[in-house]
Amino acid sequence: MSGPRIRLHVEQPLGTGQAVVLAPGQAHYLGSVMRQVPGDTVLLFNGADGEWRARLTHANRRGARLLCEEQTRPQGAPPDLWLLFAPLRRERTAFLVEKAVELGAARLLPFITRRTNAERLRLDRERAHAIEAAEQCGATWVPEVATPRPMAQILAEWPHGRQLFWADEARAGAGGDASTSADGCRRPDTGPEEGAAGREACGPGSGRPGPAAILIGPEGGFDAGERAALAALPFVRPFGLGPRILRAETAALAALALWQARFGDWA
Amino acid sequence: MSGPRIRLHVEQPLGTGQAVVLAPGQAHYLGSVMRQVPGDTVLLFNGADGEWRARLTHANRRGARLLCEEQTRPQGAPPDLWLLFAPLRRERTAFLVEKAVELGAARLLPFITRRTNAERLRLDRERAHAIEAAEQCGATWVPEVATPRPMAQILAEWPHGRQLFWADEARAGAGGDASTSADGCRRPDTGPEEGAAGREACGPGSGRPGPAAILIGPEGGFDAGERAALAALPFVRPFGLGPRILRAETAALAALALWQARFGDWA
Repeated sequence: MSGPRIRLHVEQPLGTGQAVVLAPGQAHYLGSVMRQVPGDTVLLFNGADGEWRARLTHANRRGARLLCEEQTRPQGAPPDLWLLFAPLRRERTAFLVEKAVELGAARLLPFITRRTNAERLRLDRERAHAIEAAEQCGATWVPEVATPRPMAQILAEWPHGRQLFWADEARAGAGGDASTSADGCRRPDTGPEEGAAGREACGPGSGRPGPAAILIGPEGGFDAGERAALAALPFVRPFGLGPRILRAETAALAALALWQARFGDWA
Repeated sequence: MSGPRIRLHVEQPLGTGQAVVLAPGQAHYLGSVMRQVPGDTVLLFNGADGEWRARLTHANRRGARLLCEEQTRPQGAPPDLWLLFAPLRRERTAFLVEKAVELGAARLLPFITRRTNAERLRLDRERAHAIEAAEQCGATWVPEVATPRPMAQILAEWPHGRQLFWADEARAGAGGDASTSADGCRRPDTGPEEGAAGREACGPGSGRPGPAAILIGPEGGFDAGERAALAALPFVRPFGLGPRILRAETAALAALALWQARFGDWA
């Protein structure tokens, strides 16, 4: 409840008595924006050494220096869940990246399709968004935002044993009348094709699934050839997200939340 | 699959042979932005008469006129789920409203607490966002965005029989290590206090719950008095959304998705 509220991701090693020199941008944020002065403490993490309380020993316009005092949290790791998405309009991609980090995606893999304009994605900006989100949400890691690659290439090199849950937009569009509601357990892997597998995974005796990924199509949807190629892959499991047509980023966030609640670290 | 892609919310009655005159703003959108010309068809809905295919008969700078031809979808209604939230920063509120409509909230109730700046919320703008989202997602209704009221007043007048699921941010913050994962069914109503009820609601024999609402606290959190007051109410059911600290809008979207998947119209 008490203690320092500011969390910063740094690249340096962290450990007892370790000195950390901040880059000018972070030093400015700490001193001029957050008004921290020598003697104040902040939390640092680097994705490898856990989270550390560090005391500000020196701060001026050009930089800031801190001294690690105590580990406040061991190094953690997110559940083994990837998110595959096509770059969206700028502010929607930023939102998607931020939310995916908060919701605990381990890797973000932007992909290129025939209908995707990959030049939309500025990797440096999205990686900065991922860092900010990790700082804010309390994660001790920063999910990777991978360099965009063609969808076909990602699928051709797909790792053995990792399920790919495909949020198939063709399953939406019935309009969202409440009269279509039903009771019981809903699971992200229950498409009409694999109801049995889905039911199995929902049972109280079900263990955690292995590595997984969620796939959200581009804004214009996949074309027929891409859809057929996806549907034919043995590790692909299509599923729906209700009767309304969700924007790509909404579908991504909903699917991440459902997976975390069922299989991830929200228990 | 084929047919008109443009959907517009109108205020006028809709029915066979009914003429509809668009306001200048919508007429401009239809003619100048979307380049529709007389003879083209669009979809119209008004929240009461279902969705109609209408043909553009007349369009110029000052207005546009359409003729309803056929009902394409009966009037629907969202599941009986409200969302209570404290106004956020401008772009985050806009996002929250848009996503809540897509995810099928029936009413959006902004509330004021000691730590909430209610002047942030511009109702006209948020109502326009709700309409846009309804047009986009295929709903035949537009969820109400209510006038902000003090939290205490909303709770004092709470309708009998409606459960209020409180996304209690005090349950997050453990850091999100994957080692805390567990298997089994996760449900939005499973706080430590009511595991039994939660388990009951998840079972395959569970029917739909009655009317429900989701409550997301303000960005600064509730203060101690507000928390105690909430916890004491018999219709309030606190629940957590995993170990990471979610932003208010992230928590709202995740909770809506979980509820829809379990109790709503995502079956």
